[in-house]
Amino acid sequence: MIIDGKQAAVDLRKALAIEVAQLKKDKNITPGLTVVLVGEDPASQIYVRNKVKQTREVGMISSEIKLPIDTTQAQLLEQLEQLNNDNSVHGILVQLPLPKHIDESVIIAAIAPHKDVDGFHALNSGRLLNGEKGALVPCTPQGCIILAKKHLGEDLSGLHAVVIGRSNIVGKPVALLLLQEHCTVTITHSRTKNLAEICRQADILIAAVGRPNFVKASWVKKGATVIDVGINRIEDENGKAKLVGDVDFTAVEKICGAITPVPGGVGPMTIACLLKNTVEAARANA
Amino acid sequence: MIIDGKQAAVDLRKALAIEVAQLKKDKNITPGLTVVLVGEDPASQIYVRNKVKQTREVGMISSEIKLPIDTTQAQLLEQLEQLNNDNSVHGILVQLPLPKHIDESVIIAAIAPHKDVDGFHALNSGRLLNGEKGALVPCTPQGCIILAKKHLGEDLSGLHAVVIGRSNIVGKPVALLLLQEHCTVTITHSRTKNLAEICRQADILIAAVGRPNFVKASWVKKGATVIDVGINRIEDENGKAKLVGDVDFTAVEKICGAITPVPGGVGPMTIACLLKNTVEAARANA
Repeated sequence: MIIDGKQAAVDLRKALAIEVAQLKKDKNITPGLTVVLVGEDPASQIYVRNKVKQTREVGMISSEIKLPIDTTQAQLLEQLEQLNNDNSVHGILVQLPLPKHIDESVIIAAIAPHKDVDGFHALNSGRLLNGEKGALVPCTPQGCIILAKKHLGEDLSGLHAVVIGRSNIVGKPVALLLLQEHCTVTITHSRTKNLAEICRQADILIAAVGRPNFVKASWVKKGATVIDVGINRIEDENGKAKLVGDVDFTAVEKICGAITPVPGGVGPMTIACLLKNTVEAARANA
Repeated sequence: MIIDGKQAAVDLRKALAIEVAQLKKDKNITPGLTVVLVGEDPASQIYVRNKVKQTREVGMISSEIKLPIDTTQAQLLEQLEQLNNDNSVHGILVQLPLPKHIDESVIIAAIAPHKDVDGFHALNSGRLLNGEKGALVPCTPQGCIILAKKHLGEDLSGLHAVVIGRSNIVGKPVALLLLQEHCTVTITHSRTKNLAEICRQADILIAAVGRPNFVKASWVKKGATVIDVGINRIEDENGKAKLVGDVDFTAVEKICGAITPVPGGVGPMTIACLLKNTVEAARANA
């Protein structure tokens, strides 16, 4: 089975549109997401454009603040302070990466935790770790769980999940979400020995390393659910650019029980989960 | 090898005493730890007495605030507010468990994160998860790592660590510390299938389940390092109370490479690491 992330994202956005309409009707609140973009990185501009478009499509307010590349850290902090204090803004997203003269960790720490819809603020990370209420959870990991459940159903209890990669954005938070779902969880990374052998134990295999076609068919247990978080730009045999994941899709597809494609798998879920976080943030502060 | 936690705690306290003396000399700061005890639970009173004694032994200021069992949550919050604002107090520890009419999560969240020497505040949890600077890390997990290194040396990179238990106090934070040490980490728990088989993969096995003699010899790989966090009170064959760990010590000792005993293993390290956190908190805010 190929897990259709595009369709799952459409479904989630439809459900969110209904929630947004209900929030308007019941509480006269329209969830608002403000994206802050510093500089003119072309990839970031495309991401931001997609976010703006999808935010509006579900009936939410989308604002975009474009700042010049030479914005100082102090200026950006001042901008965030304004947004933190603006009651019409429920979610704040600072598009990463930032220019090198700005310290990302300082910026992330300056976003009000209850508006931190990327879920990168340490207070949200800690709430996720401790299983506390009110955590805003990083978007891509949320998408991974939703897609795994498309194949496995709601109950993941007792399954062995193996995560390849230990980033703050994907590896560690997705491991914690899997643990909340009562999976046995193994976190692997570049220092892991016998990686293939460990991966072969996985009922759920999450690949988040950023290395094209890294996960081989021989690493995958028959029937496993494979979630491919990688988005790697490579050249095909004709020298044309194409996107591939971290998993050798063609070979693995024949062995696994279900797999997310790249593109069209985890990618589309990330923005949909960002909108979900914004709706949650708006509801929590209603 | 039996890893001597008592001796390791003595060594750590000696090193801390030197640091405390240096802090006094260089910056005229004496680290201060305040323990807040609500009610008269006998076990808690013993813990607090030990903490006070050891705090003083390393040259730090120890204060104890005893509140009656019928203290309201609001009164306790007010007390914490005072301690948060008192510059002579570098570490605050609220002895758990609290009486049932007080919500522990509200109390933990009210301790200033930079004075939260138990490391239970979500901001500290999140900093640990994200690998950010300035995290105050829970004490027992720190003790586990120090003891494992007594046998394995400083470099744990690439070792497979298996953690049994996923509590906020031990299981999850120790898993993150092992990950920071570049171990491959598997977190198991009550829903885990084939637990014995997974444990047999462990180079480092951490047992933190609170079930006497739970881990059997057949679960342990030859030569593994076993850290036993359990402290279980049972009756021996003569009906006398005694303390045992989560590991079947007598049987496992013959197979493993090293093991911590109960008592005298992880237990003594917990308070020593609490003192270490207090020194760090004092230094960070000097």
